[in-house]
Amino acid sequence: MSSPTHAKTESKEQEVPEKAKAAVLVESVPLPAGTPIVKGYDWNKGVSYKALLETYRFCGFQATNFGLAVEEINKMLSCRAIPLSEDLEDVLEEDEFIRRNSNCTIFLGFTSNMVSAGIRDTICFLVQHHMVDCIVTTAGGVEEDLIKCLAPTYIGDFHLEGRKLREKGINRIGNLLVPNENYCLFEDWVMPRLDAMLEEQKEKGTLWTPSKVIAKLGEEIGDPSSICYWAAKNKIPVFSPALTDGSLGDMMYFHSYRNPGLVLDIIQDLRRLNTMAVKAANTGMVIIGGGVIKHHICNANLMVYSEASLVFPLLVGETFAKRYHATKIKAESDV
Amino acid sequence: MSSPTHAKTESKEQEVPEKAKAAVLVESVPLPAGTPIVKGYDWNKGVSYKALLETYRFCGFQATNFGLAVEEINKMLSCRAIPLSEDLEDVLEEDEFIRRNSNCTIFLGFTSNMVSAGIRDTICFLVQHHMVDCIVTTAGGVEEDLIKCLAPTYIGDFHLEGRKLREKGINRIGNLLVPNENYCLFEDWVMPRLDAMLEEQKEKGTLWTPSKVIAKLGEEIGDPSSICYWAAKNKIPVFSPALTDGSLGDMMYFHSYRNPGLVLDIIQDLRRLNTMAVKAANTGMVIIGGGVIKHHICNANLMVYSEASLVFPLLVGETFAKRYHATKIKAESDV
Amino acid sequence: MSSPTHAKTESKEQEVPEKAKAAVLVESVPLPAGTPIVKGYDWNKGVSYKALLETYRFCGFQATNFGLAVEEINKMLSCRAIPLSEDLEDVLEEDEFIRRNSNCTIFLGFTSNMVSAGIRDTICFLVQHHMVDCIVTTAGGVEEDLIKCLAPTYIGDFHLEGRKLREKGINRIGNLLVPNENYCLFEDWVMPRLDAMLEEQKEKGTLWTPSKVIAKLGEEIGDPSSICYWAAKNKIPVFSPALTDGSLGDMMYFHSYRNPGLVLDIIQDLRRLNTMAVKAANTGMVIIGGGVIKHHICNANLMVYSEASLVFPLLVGETFAKRYHATKIKAESDV
Amino acid sequence: MSSPTHAKTESKEQEVPEKAKAAVLVESVPLPAGTPIVKGYDWNKGVSYKALLETYRFCGFQATNFGLAVEEINKMLSCRAIPLSEDLEDVLEEDEFIRRNSNCTIFLGFTSNMVSAGIRDTICFLVQHHMVDCIVTTAGGVEEDLIKCLAPTYIGDFHLEGRKLREKGINRIGNLLVPNENYCLFEDWVMPRLDAMLEEQKEKGTLWTPSKVIAKLGEEIGDPSSICYWAAKNKIPVFSPALTDGSLGDMMYFHSYRNPGLVLDIIQDLRRLNTMAVKAANTGMVIIGGGVIKHHICNANLMVYSEASLVFPLLVGETFAKRYHATKIKAESDV
Repeated sequence: MSSPTHAKTESKEQEVPEKAKAAVLVESVPLPAGTPIVKGYDWNKGVSYKALLETYRFCGFQATNFGLAVEEINKMLSCRAIPLSEDLEDVLEEDEFIRRNSNCTIFLGFTSNMVSAGIRDTICFLVQHHMVDCIVTTAGGVEEDLIKCLAPTYIGDFHLEGRKLREKGINRIGNLLVPNENYCLFEDWVMPRLDAMLEEQKEKGTLWTPSKVIAKLGEEIGDPSSICYWAAKNKIPVFSPALTDGSLGDMMYFHSYRNPGLVLDIIQDLRRLNTMAVKAANTGMVIIGGGVIKHHICNANLMVYSEASLVFPLLVGETFAKRYHATKIKAESDV
Repeated sequence: MSSPTHAKTESKEQEVPEKAKAAVLVESVPLPAGTPIVKGYDWNKGVSYKALLETYRFCGFQATNFGLAVEEINKMLSCRAIPLSEDLEDVLEEDEFIRRNSNCTIFLGFTSNMVSAGIRDTICFLVQHHMVDCIVTTAGGVEEDLIKCLAPTYIGDFHLEGRKLREKGINRIGNLLVPNENYCLFEDWVMPRLDAMLEEQKEKGTLWTPSKVIAKLGEEIGDPSSICYWAAKNKIPVFSPALTDGSLGDMMYFHSYRNPGLVLDIIQDLRRLNTMAVKAANTGMVIIGGGVIKHHICNANLMVYSEASLVFPLLVGETFAKRYHATKIKAESDV
Repeated sequence: MSSPTHAKTESKEQEVPEKAKAAVLVESVPLPAGTPIVKGYDWNKGVSYKALLETYRFCGFQATNFGLAVEEINKMLSCRAIPLSEDLEDVLEEDEFIRRNSNCTIFLGFTSNMVSAGIRDTICFLVQHHMVDCIVTTAGGVEEDLIKCLAPTYIGDFHLEGRKLREKGINRIGNLLVPNENYCLFEDWVMPRLDAMLEEQKEKGTLWTPSKVIAKLGEEIGDPSSICYWAAKNKIPVFSPALTDGSLGDMMYFHSYRNPGLVLDIIQDLRRLNTMAVKAANTGMVIIGGGVIKHHICNANLMVYSEASLVFPLLVGETFAKRYHATKIKAESDV
Repeated sequence: MSSPTHAKTESKEQEVPEKAKAAVLVESVPLPAGTPIVKGYDWNKGVSYKALLETYRFCGFQATNFGLAVEEINKMLSCRAIPLSEDLEDVLEEDEFIRRNSNCTIFLGFTSNMVSAGIRDTICFLVQHHMVDCIVTTAGGVEEDLIKCLAPTYIGDFHLEGRKLREKGINRIGNLLVPNENYCLFEDWVMPRLDAMLEEQKEKGTLWTPSKVIAKLGEEIGDPSSICYWAAKNKIPVFSPALTDGSLGDMMYFHSYRNPGLVLDIIQDLRRLNTMAVKAANTGMVIIGGGVIKHHICNANLMVYSEASLVFPLLVGETFAKRYHATKIKAESDV
């Protein structure tokens, strides 16, 4: 490396990476004043989850999205706390109930696996205290809620082999286990109610829809651990357009042979759901569970999303539940 | 539907679904006694995150896995609290430091995005209090830690367009923003240190390895917000076999022209890391971040995993931090 | 490294990795005789896709699954080629058409994005030549098929910003573009047909179901590029239980105000679909598109699935199309 | 529905959905002239994969991306066919080989699973005919290639239970099976070569790097089914910065006890790789396999990507292989 020739080559060599470097690093334009700086929780301050969750907004990735979700839901709840102007009060129609009793109509959507899991209890809290106005779920979301009133779901393991379990009459949903017997109990419970619905259709000319069927089943189940029970009690409609998918569908199929004639219309429900949205003063939407696809589209980047069983309870803690208990305490101290 | 013929057909018809039904539902074998039942938190009891997190074990899906992870880490920490028998004490060798000062050697792995996010502060707590013994990370994990000592990382948005940001000299990592200027500051800081390492190699014959380079940089950064700082101070090795990937690699490349000759050996580090595992009394492993692939393989089923920025702090809260503060309080009350 | 003491330490040292090694490598049990060996295509033989696809079975990963799928579908087609015994011939009932004219009833499922893409043409080929017996799809699967008869879908780019496109009245589905105008044309085409259906309901007491609505629309569209057209012509039922989702649902909603009263029953369709499965001599199922979730569950491991736009045509090439053309050539040569 | 009051309400009612409709459908701006229309292959034309693949560009989703990838690679190959100007000819330096003998330097990256699968044979074809200039892979990518020269990899099943296989000394990679014995054969083959490398280091002062080790192993394996063999023969460097990960790392670890002292420098390789890119007249990049993450970021939207075992061979068929065979035929006919 010491000959003059080589030195020359060297300086030429050296040029190249310098050019490469210049190409790599464009000079930074300053970020807008007030752009928040990433900062995590300092555990030397002790174990306070309340304090921890308040730092999430500035932690980056999904923790920041958690913080943003808390803000968004709290906006809905603040909007909801504003009294509704008189001209926007409830509209009750002959054959459909159009609710508009709050300044912010909150739509809650969830997938059936949330109900199979313990998230059912968190959802139930929201419905019990009428903190949401409209529910959209899948057939499984309704079934699992009702079945859990008849027999429990168990904790298993993601890695249990499906085939072996099926031979034993046990169904696996992720790491949850549901014995076939639960579905048998459900069938025994549902069948006479389908008979009664068909009877009412024939006698009174009722045109049944998924939301009407769910309200009927919710009334009948009479169990305060059930989402459908509280939805029926609080007149919160539960929409499930493909209610014939899954286990209830199987029962309706068997029923169509035993006692044929029941009609389940989806247009009337479509009308009811759309009208709720069209007539709302303001709307909010909370969707739990979802599939990978939606997350995929929403998050678009990075391997960053979070399964709802972990995060939804924390979100409710920082929003609905916090507000409910604050109001209750205030109400009690006002007495 | 009233002719006898039709009736006959009908009864034949009816037969078919009955058979179908029998095929669908195999009788359930009872689950083993003590199989836990799915149950979520009852928010009517108030907002207590401590109580909530204790119910996760029985919530199903990833919440159950969270509960299992808490149990697993607490087992490591209990094992670690047992005094090490004398014949297993630290082994110090001439050219490599083999640590064995606890009954459970904990390996901590994390990806660079955890360090870019506020999770760096949680990791830092574990390293500061020497609650882990060995760190494995990517080149980015080291760089981002050191760069944050020189200039901050900002909160942005997942949907900011990469191209526009690059024109402004700003890099996006998910919803985080890092100005190019930070990397320039890092280069100015690193270059003289690479010179010094080369000098030491020439004078003392030091054979540099990624872990030695990281320890040197950690010492020099002298900033208690840094993981590398505490790792160097507590003699916890940080392994990063592909340290030439990323920004440090660019600098080593430029340096190899300005001041050629630095050697970075990966076999010595391989030996050091493997020996730590081989000589450990017991081992524990905590991996944060990871890519989708690993999660994919680990969870195998359902759309269920969780991004670490949300969950790792909660996990630390229920394990490391809880134990640290309990010990501290005990120590203080013992005085 | 030369002192006796050190040597002693060394031999002790050496022991450790040997133990580690023993622990790592359990002796292999021989694989069953005939276990196929992984082998890829040798391109030195020239570019023959037919020959290439025949090697896929032994390439591993999803290429092997492709080979298995080809085998599976070819089994269905061979079963289908066996004449149906007389006692199993078609059953035609008053209010529902139960098809059983082949020895293997093939159910074809697809998601709407397959129809938005050029996969529609491949599906159409299968339906035109009556190589499948029953179709299940989403509301979008029906709409996109009909809309394409009225106006084209365009190739765009995955990275076009949704917001900007919406301002221009253009919808993006992945890298496809559909102008709002297409939906307006569809509405103009659908509305009078909904009027006619309601008219028929009032006059003849027809109880409409999603499959009946789709058959009606398929008849009326009269365009041989359409899946629904050929399904109607060949009396292949198309089931779509949540037909009120999406654009057709919007139209039915508007229609329910303009001209109220149309009923869409899902129980009758449930009965029809289930009965087809129950009465089939044998069944086969081909599902294209699907969401990530299903793939996730099916494949369970590795980064392993393939988007259908790439693979389904190749699969049809090796199965349905190959058989169709072989039969046609045979039929022609027999003349 | 007939009273005037109600009629009034009705017309008010009707207003609402009309407004909703207006909000939904913004008028479409016409798409630029020449925007391609989605169109799939017409199977009535017969089974021609060549014709089919040419329609992919206009099929939408990943099929369109396939078409774009074909175009992109064909651009690289056309650029590569242009003779290199004299002043840009090969640069050979004392301790590193900088290749620049074509007008387009093509970098080929692949993950180890591609080599485990039959894709190895397709990659081998590219390297054998020197159609790429630089290879980057993981430790596994190198190991699996060499091991396959010693013993075969087998086709298994994705669902075989890992634990049971491990007890039998068999490793599963997706649906592929590799007996432990293969790794034992590899160790017997590698160990004396590590000894020889250490010998050369001591005698000639060779500073080994991952790319030099791989070239040495490629020379020695002497098997024309091997990527490393052809890479060594054609002087195409293979970079693998974390070569100590995986099985080769285990062997280097054991070797460091049996016969200590081998040094593996990664800075020299970093310099060599970066310089290849910096000095190239033009560059092209082909990456196969990758992880989910990269696809995640690249495709950003929709559940649409494709596993490489299925698609890479088709891509090579439409690009490299087509061009190679066209040239060969031309060369032969010119004789």
